[in-house]
Amino acid sequence: MTRLPMKDRFSLPDGMIYLDGNSLGPLPVGTAEKVQDVVQAQWGAHLIKGWNLDGWMAQPARVGNRIARLIGAPEGSVTMGDTLSVKVFQALSAALKMRPDRRVILSDSGNFPSDLYMAEGLIQQLGQGYELRIVAPEDVASAMTDDVAVAMITQVDYRTGRMHDMAQVTAAAHGAGAVMLWDLAHSAGAVPVDVAACNAEFSVGCTYKYLNGGPGAPAFIYARPDIVADIQPALAGWLGHDAPFAFETGYRPAAGIERMRVGTPPVIQMTALEHALGLWDEVDMAELRERSVALGELFIALVEEKCPELVLASPRDANQRGSQVSFASKNGYAVMQALIARDVIGDFRAPDIMRFGFTPLYIDEDDVRGAVDILADILATRSWDRPEYHQKRDVT
Amino acid sequence: MTRLPMKDRFSLPDGMIYLDGNSLGPLPVGTAEKVQDVVQAQWGAHLIKGWNLDGWMAQPARVGNRIARLIGAPEGSVTMGDTLSVKVFQALSAALKMRPDRRVILSDSGNFPSDLYMAEGLIQQLGQGYELRIVAPEDVASAMTDDVAVAMITQVDYRTGRMHDMAQVTAAAHGAGAVMLWDLAHSAGAVPVDVAACNAEFSVGCTYKYLNGGPGAPAFIYARPDIVADIQPALAGWLGHDAPFAFETGYRPAAGIERMRVGTPPVIQMTALEHALGLWDEVDMAELRERSVALGELFIALVEEKCPELVLASPRDANQRGSQVSFASKNGYAVMQALIARDVIGDFRAPDIMRFGFTPLYIDEDDVRGAVDILADILATRSWDRPEYHQKRDVT
Repeated sequence: MTRLPMKDRFSLPDGMIYLDGNSLGPLPVGTAEKVQDVVQAQWGAHLIKGWNLDGWMAQPARVGNRIARLIGAPEGSVTMGDTLSVKVFQALSAALKMRPDRRVILSDSGNFPSDLYMAEGLIQQLGQGYELRIVAPEDVASAMTDDVAVAMITQVDYRTGRMHDMAQVTAAAHGAGAVMLWDLAHSAGAVPVDVAACNAEFSVGCTYKYLNGGPGAPAFIYARPDIVADIQPALAGWLGHDAPFAFETGYRPAAGIERMRVGTPPVIQMTALEHALGLWDEVDMAELRERSVALGELFIALVEEKCPELVLASPRDANQRGSQVSFASKNGYAVMQALIARDVIGDFRAPDIMRFGFTPLYIDEDDVRGAVDILADILATRSWDRPEYHQKRDVT
Repeated sequence: MTRLPMKDRFSLPDGMIYLDGNSLGPLPVGTAEKVQDVVQAQWGAHLIKGWNLDGWMAQPARVGNRIARLIGAPEGSVTMGDTLSVKVFQALSAALKMRPDRRVILSDSGNFPSDLYMAEGLIQQLGQGYELRIVAPEDVASAMTDDVAVAMITQVDYRTGRMHDMAQVTAAAHGAGAVMLWDLAHSAGAVPVDVAACNAEFSVGCTYKYLNGGPGAPAFIYARPDIVADIQPALAGWLGHDAPFAFETGYRPAAGIERMRVGTPPVIQMTALEHALGLWDEVDMAELRERSVALGELFIALVEEKCPELVLASPRDANQRGSQVSFASKNGYAVMQALIARDVIGDFRAPDIMRFGFTPLYIDEDDVRGAVDILADILATRSWDRPEYHQKRDVT
């Protein structure tokens, strides 16, 4: 194991304090070379032969096994591809099929909107009285009534960082006879996760945040090994077929999690991701969590001391928080722009949330102190109150 | 316009005759540099700011407009993302919603299996009596009965190269009141396509074949501008939302084709594709088609002269053929392995098809003659009959 931080493993711009690894992780050192290699030495030199020669066809399973280790899933239970939204759709439609007599998808208001939209699109398509029921995050366990077919919950709230207890929520879902689907977008690589221990049926997640796979890196999907053989995939693509290259007219799903593959995998992105995941062989997740909590606690203490006008929007109890801390401010958008202009990168989430991600792989206490000093200065001098910082843009 | 071929624009291995651009196009010169740039200078240096600074968010629309020019679609009517199978699913489910009183998806036995599988998965999910009706390619027009909700046809048969007349088939579909969905996987960049003229509602396609976008390059989807505002997307992802960064709880589709976006786009793959599409500014599609036909005709004549044991599996009439020529042989698999061992790259499609793609961008008459000479030698000497050439692998 390598002691954290391991800043030299990332290509971070000089002087930048990057507290946005929960939106897009930074470039790991060596990625550019790996990508160059897949483009020039594999695609360029081997062309179609790359599928075998360079292991492209097996890559989703290989990369899936790296993800499995990070989320407590057994070997061979995770595959990669598409985007998180598509993987949510696949898991959700499979989960609904497992409870044909129930009509409710339960989620919470802290879920990422895309998950809710995908549920809405699926319901619109299915008709038949399906319903998306959205409750407050703290009410999830008590809302597990016996009409709930599937509980679809994102473990860590993208705005507040509030973290659900996976074991407890899953037990409540199972107690009500519901299927459990976890979105681990802000969990994988951020906090210790054990999907096998909590016994949830499905988990999905993205890889461009804490896992540093790069912009648009493919998503992952896990299905509990004892249920996977019964899943009838809604997105029945040829690479999820038992024999894709037999080119049969009818669909026969592959034996295991491979049935959740759909089309041709994004080999170049997958290569960047595979390299990024290699870093985790050197990381002790318990140490990572401990450092993440320490950084978050320090940030909260310093902000509350030096920026009293900001209101903590994350749980104060570190056990209920993922690896981010959020503060609310009605001037949040402009303040964040002013921070970014001074090379402290976080992001803003409507309506009033400034969020800061702490990734112990490359963030240390000096970064936290530096960020808070700049934040305090921006607030004290009101330097955020400039026209250019009020100009709305879509993303940070 | 640049005269064809333009071999110097591709990084092709010395001595290789690459007749498999219809499976995976070769690496365009300059792609590696563009990919290096997006990884190092954009992701590495700008991190999350790349979404605005480097135009990542607008890339699917920008690249879509390049595709639009190649398929005769108006500006702003094509977007990019996911895989072709996912785009088939989106178009197909939208098409079914347009004919709520009909239950038949019509396709043909020459369609690529993944399209048929996706239809099967969708039907399985919908229930309600939906049916996938598969007829022989030559029977498509006459099978347009008034119970057909959508005709889902791949213009060029992946095995035989048989090419449908898009205008004629679309007219037949519309005559029966059906919605038309074209899969242009083997058409875009291979033959002149005019989706606006044929008036089809939907077209989809992939970009890693004739368009040289690289392994796993994103797919495209076109919807006719007059219908797009009525589409209720089945895959209702946040990047298809009218205001993704407002993070609203409910889904409101974007105004135009952007509603067919789903999740975060694969920026690195998209960059490789965007570069590859630049080549088409220099290509005259009429000249390309003329050269493609000439190459195919020469190949057929030479193979029939020198390899009489092979049976033409493509239409003899060039007007009914895409940009590939296939020959059938019961030893096809082993013969193709022997060809590949001698650096003539085509591929095999079960049960007995050897297919050869002709891409006039980098293939000329000398390549065709060279390939046939080697093929004739392999057959004459029976050098294909070695154990290693019978060993089955998934892909070429």
